Amino acid sequence: LLPEAQPIISLLTDFGTRDVYAGVLHGVIAGIAPRARVIDLTHEVAAQDVIEAAFLLDAAAPYFPEGTIHVCVVDPGVGSSRRILCARAPRATFLAPDNGLLTRVLERLRADGPVDLRAVENRAWFLADVSSTFHGRDVFAPVAARLALGHDARDLGPAVHDPVLLDLAPDRALGPGHVRGEVVHVDRFGNLITNLRPGRHGADVRAARLVTSEVTREVEGPVRASYADVREGAPLLITSSTGLLEIAVRGGSAHEQLHAGRGEPVDVFVLDPAPTPRAASASGVCS
Amino acid sequence: LLPEAQPIISLLTDFGTRDVYAGVLHGVIAGIAPRARVIDLTHEVAAQDVIEAAFLLDAAAPYFPEGTIHVCVVDPGVGSSRRILCARAPRATFLAPDNGLLTRVLERLRADGPVDLRAVENRAWFLADVSSTFHGRDVFAPVAARLALGHDARDLGPAVHDPVLLDLAPDRALGPGHVRGEVVHVDRFGNLITNLRPGRHGADVRAARLVTSEVTREVEGPVRASYADVREGAPLLITSSTGLLEIAVRGGSAHEQLHAGRGEPVDVFVLDPAPTPRAASASGVCS
Amino acid sequence: LLPEAQPIISLLTDFGTRDVYAGVLHGVIAGIAPRARVIDLTHEVAAQDVIEAAFLLDAAAPYFPEGTIHVCVVDPGVGSSRRILCARAPRATFLAPDNGLLTRVLERLRADGPVDLRAVENRAWFLADVSSTFHGRDVFAPVAARLALGHDARDLGPAVHDPVLLDLAPDRALGPGHVRGEVVHVDRFGNLITNLRPGRHGADVRAARLVTSEVTREVEGPVRASYADVREGAPLLITSSTGLLEIAVRGGSAHEQLHAGRGEPVDVFVLDPAPTPRAASASGVCS
Repeated sequence: LLPEAQPIISLLTDFGTRDVYAGVLHGVIAGIAPRARVIDLTHEVAAQDVIEAAFLLDAAAPYFPEGTIHVCVVDPGVGSSRRILCARAPRATFLAPDNGLLTRVLERLRADGPVDLRAVENRAWFLADVSSTFHGRDVFAPVAARLALGHDARDLGPAVHDPVLLDLAPDRALGPGHVRGEVVHVDRFGNLITNLRPGRHGADVRAARLVTSEVTREVEGPVRASYADVREGAPLLITSSTGLLEIAVRGGSAHEQLHAGRGEPVDVFVLDPAPTPRAASASGVCS
Repeated sequence: LLPEAQPIISLLTDFGTRDVYAGVLHGVIAGIAPRARVIDLTHEVAAQDVIEAAFLLDAAAPYFPEGTIHVCVVDPGVGSSRRILCARAPRATFLAPDNGLLTRVLERLRADGPVDLRAVENRAWFLADVSSTFHGRDVFAPVAARLALGHDARDLGPAVHDPVLLDLAPDRALGPGHVRGEVVHVDRFGNLITNLRPGRHGADVRAARLVTSEVTREVEGPVRASYADVREGAPLLITSSTGLLEIAVRGGSAHEQLHAGRGEPVDVFVLDPAPTPRAASASGVCS
Repeated sequence: LLPEAQPIISLLTDFGTRDVYAGVLHGVIAGIAPRARVIDLTHEVAAQDVIEAAFLLDAAAPYFPEGTIHVCVVDPGVGSSRRILCARAPRATFLAPDNGLLTRVLERLRADGPVDLRAVENRAWFLADVSSTFHGRDVFAPVAARLALGHDARDLGPAVHDPVLLDLAPDRALGPGHVRGEVVHVDRFGNLITNLRPGRHGADVRAARLVTSEVTREVEGPVRASYADVREGAPLLITSSTGLLEIAVRGGSAHEQLHAGRGEPVDVFVLDPAPTPRAASASGVCS
């Protein structure tokens, strides 16, 4: 008799850690599924910032073991009639409000195979008293715990075919070898992570320009292999650990030094757009 | 032979997470009670803010499974002669300095049945060297771990009959249908949580007024069912997830928009104080 | 058949908790070593601050159970040719970049017995794809997980005999009974922790002076037994929970009240340097 496997439940919220909201989720889960293991992805998504949450979830989920249940609560519409979704795929399950938070993850899951997408409606899975302000505690946590116990997700509610999807990668070709995206996340080090995906080698990115400000802040390419490839204090382009184009400053903060934050438009210029068919289209270079 | 249950130890402190203080508590507990499961409630209680700690503990504890050991270290008097208390009830055990932190919890526990309250004095339960500055590590963590192992709390020290209690809900009736309380917590979203408890439906709350400032900041009732019941950016009254009256701003921060923080007096006015006997007294409306 | 022991992996990084970096480490470890238990020491080391990391690690590690694997990722040189070290001693194992982070810990380990120090080079232990920006995920986490599974650290790479070591305790005798050190850490409460170690009783420390500012900020000794030994709001000297001399303010923040931060030089004066041979040398008083 082997000890049963411990399903993993990950938590991604905007609850912060100054409050006990996140801790209470752990408590509710422990009461229902004592052997489930709960991992905090982060509770510091910017308050009610669904786009950032979608980016962070997509960056993290692929590194979790098969069977993980990801609980994502960035939920400006809590208490309204917005749906809660359960997306179940062979590798992982996701619970999130139906506000676009799952946009990136659904793309990835659907590339792998069928996804069972349902509205979470069966109150038998919830806590007995459901508040109108804290569904994380009253709905998300108990539903995740019961999924961890092996309950059948098909009992949760009806299938959903029209989830809210965000336009998360609005990169636009502005001309040959010229594409516009934006900064989707500023990490703790002040690195600016964009929604642009450099080509496999990145050698073809000539420069990135932060475009909103009056002052031109252009960072020269190519995309470097490492922060250490430029001198201390210099800006650089690099492929972030999530595969997206990142604007950084070695040993410093690009956020502070380049005065750029989330939402800032970023233009990328390609060194030599002509030679290959791929490079001729923006989406070939930065997809 | 079933694997033995894992007792849960929750941690509520003002240690912050910039230091390793909280991590060290985990380490000490793991060394003594390797199978105990430790859940961080929060380590970001405002430094030495016993009142906020009492509020947060009371909000979280009911959501933890039976048998949980709650370790609460907000301890401005560390190293002085202040006592450390162990409160043991059928559903849960609490360790805290004797500074009023357990005020709310003791009320709740005593409503349920007898509570064994003791001074933590038996040095055999502590680490061998006890510092005068970090009892969390040297006293609280090892005592919690030994409780998790099943040691008998009655060996900890003598019974205590006079714990320090705070006056945490100083709501005062200022006139018919007019009661004064205060903001006891500002959460991450800027919601202002008061020490007033709306009636079961809340429909009788006409308005809440933040009273200290020269500028009148009055928020109209009734108590709403959901943030979504008002337009984006508008202030509202709602029952917080802890059952207390909360002043919020939909999609924004009441803390910033109304310039109000912890300790701010709040006046609540009742729509129609006459009709029922309950509404005639402040404590009937907001208890 | 007893359940196998759960090895503990502790994490000390400068990743912050706003990002999912730390959570991803948990995910990677859970995928490889599902029964390993992961404890967050802190993820809020000041960005790229190796000296602070060395101090915090040394303060925490002694409180973890035998066999703990400490993963330390404060790594300004990520992606460069800097080595990653594995230090294996009977009581604990440490993984860290070869940038001096292990300086204090190596001193302590070597006082206890032989330490096996290796360069982490064996790519079979890493994730299949190793980025140049996130070795925490791609190298440190999988290596720690495999160590937790019992893999032999000697397979990791060649022995290292010249680790980078920092000069972390540059206290200097400036005269009889006069020694200079510095503030190495400011904790959440604003306590200033120095690199000076008071004598066993501390009674011989007459005063500590913060020396850089034009304004003299001298805190009188002796080293107190407890914060409660001075009046509310008064500065004091105390032995921190890590055994180092700490400058504090009862019920307040020495950081704010004395306008002093990390790196600030601190002079310590000894009451009566003559009587004993130990007190005659700076290192005797503060070693």
